[in-house]
Amino acid sequence: MDDEVPRDSVIRCDAAALREFTERVLTALGVPPADARIAADVIVEGDLRGFESHGVARLPWFVKRLRLGLIAVRPAIAIEWRTATTGHCDGGNGLGMVVGHRAMAACIERAKQAGAAFLAVKGSNHFGIAGYYSSMALPFQMIGIALSNASPRVVPTGGTTGILGTNPLSVAVPRRNGHPFILDMSTSAVSSGKIDVKLRKGEKVPEGWVYPSVEPFLDDTGVVPMTVLQYPLGGRRETGGYKGFGLGLLVDMLSGVLSGANTGSGLSASQTPGTTSNMGHFFGALQVAGFRDAPGFDDDLGRLIADVTASPLEAGVERILIPGEPEMIRREEHRRSGVPILPAVVEKLREVASELGIESPV
Amino acid sequence: MDDEVPRDSVIRCDAAALREFTERVLTALGVPPADARIAADVIVEGDLRGFESHGVARLPWFVKRLRLGLIAVRPAIAIEWRTATTGHCDGGNGLGMVVGHRAMAACIERAKQAGAAFLAVKGSNHFGIAGYYSSMALPFQMIGIALSNASPRVVPTGGTTGILGTNPLSVAVPRRNGHPFILDMSTSAVSSGKIDVKLRKGEKVPEGWVYPSVEPFLDDTGVVPMTVLQYPLGGRRETGGYKGFGLGLLVDMLSGVLSGANTGSGLSASQTPGTTSNMGHFFGALQVAGFRDAPGFDDDLGRLIADVTASPLEAGVERILIPGEPEMIRREEHRRSGVPILPAVVEKLREVASELGIESPV
Repeated sequence: MDDEVPRDSVIRCDAAALREFTERVLTALGVPPADARIAADVIVEGDLRGFESHGVARLPWFVKRLRLGLIAVRPAIAIEWRTATTGHCDGGNGLGMVVGHRAMAACIERAKQAGAAFLAVKGSNHFGIAGYYSSMALPFQMIGIALSNASPRVVPTGGTTGILGTNPLSVAVPRRNGHPFILDMSTSAVSSGKIDVKLRKGEKVPEGWVYPSVEPFLDDTGVVPMTVLQYPLGGRRETGGYKGFGLGLLVDMLSGVLSGANTGSGLSASQTPGTTSNMGHFFGALQVAGFRDAPGFDDDLGRLIADVTASPLEAGVERILIPGEPEMIRREEHRRSGVPILPAVVEKLREVASELGIESPV
Repeated sequence: MDDEVPRDSVIRCDAAALREFTERVLTALGVPPADARIAADVIVEGDLRGFESHGVARLPWFVKRLRLGLIAVRPAIAIEWRTATTGHCDGGNGLGMVVGHRAMAACIERAKQAGAAFLAVKGSNHFGIAGYYSSMALPFQMIGIALSNASPRVVPTGGTTGILGTNPLSVAVPRRNGHPFILDMSTSAVSSGKIDVKLRKGEKVPEGWVYPSVEPFLDDTGVVPMTVLQYPLGGRRETGGYKGFGLGLLVDMLSGVLSGANTGSGLSASQTPGTTSNMGHFFGALQVAGFRDAPGFDDDLGRLIADVTASPLEAGVERILIPGEPEMIRREEHRRSGVPILPAVVEKLREVASELGIESPV
């Protein structure tokens, strides 16, 4: 979160206007209004939290795939609970945001009675930020879990080609006072978006971010292409990269294998013209009260966070932030001052708007 | 797993003999035979899999604490299921291996009906290798989860002191053909045991392993003391260390906060004379069949592993190993040729044996 887009090159856009625009675009393409509203909310939440590569920058990709019929506008989403707490969801090739929201809501609903509930999802597409879904559990005093596999670009430890995706892993833990804990991380050393930003600034990509098979570069759409490979979290083997590899593989097993979605290099389908993604996700919700009464939990959580953040600071560090805090601080700022959008993205959004006869908000 | 103890300086000991010895030691101290058998099995399994710092090397520490009454020989372990699938366990200050085994077995039993089950555990002590418990789920075609907090030695990103433990995280996924997937990792860049080994060999500790506040050294018992601080997985902030910090904090929340155990720097109790540990764990089991029929799962898992391991190899790499494979290969070798034990550990085990009037196996 510390490497942001240079402030002077961006255009600020009101989040509500951006959400409405996104909703209109999707509705114009045939997505039912209720689904369009959900998808727009997830997409713009990505921008609000500062995961710009997962926000409206991705809208043109969704538009293209919806138009080509590679993503279903009215998916038949089928949830089958196979035990009291576990089940399967076929997303019917719908928008990942629509499928993800439906599946996570179903987990939360079921966990109210059962204490915990989990769904493995196949037949889906890119779902935006994983942290949106894990966060859905928070108002219910539940711990939320959201995982997804993704297009292959991460090298397995010992290998030389991109087999796994940046496979995000998010866990949210409710907190009565202060920002909730929202871990929302790719299982690669850094997200691809961070590499984009470094390159756009003309800076050197730090050692350990990309696998040194090709010099990292931006393609003509201004993002790092799939041919630039990434290290798993931990980097090389000797700095613990096999752990990030293990975590990424685990996310693919839970999201892809447990659901019957595409996995590993099979996920390149999401980047292939004419082929559907069949991406997989995994969602879960666990009641805090299913383990312990809320007051004791809240007190001890506050104590642990106070303990961690009381560590004397490194030079140049203002304060220790827990996972989710940088995003919530960023969110506040973006809500007040508008969401920053890169000129290249603005241009693409204007194209989409003009094609569909909708007024562009930027 | 690749940095092992130099072969010439160790003594090989038959695993079965080591298990019997450990069992006798614990029984002599008043641990009931059935509990002693379980604890010995977990401890020696650590040695077999090559996690030598979690094997018999730790037996003298257990002996000392049992003798001082800081670990209960006959703990009153209390499990309370608060929902159909989630609950709380008070370990009664028993051996972590006994408490962990009981809690994980209870999760597996409950998951047979409910599809999934989870326990947060307080009032426990060091439980050996996390992978032992996650692996317990495998014969039942379940995914096993085992987490634990640990003594503080990992620096939160932005801070300068050790607040979190190396907080291990293990997830095991059953596989019908070939080695199962057993991720068993500390959430620090490397385990403390790896630093021990580097120093014993007289080699330089690689950058990113230890936090550069003090030069790493071995204390008079031959291990890295708590004053040598460690980086979370990912190392420094810019190489993704905040992700490892987030994972470590998550493990402490699930193991410590959700259970009411000690957390963060409060865990230094386990290293303090006269104070009980009150360590926390988190266990879970999920039926594979609760998500999908076994044949499809097995086929797709095989396909994903074949995909990952087919990546062209880096120079010097023989083959790509999935998490758990290095340990299972090591296990076979140790089962055949004996468990390697360092001279310093041999000496300590002989002391324990002589004090209790038991014959030493080494």
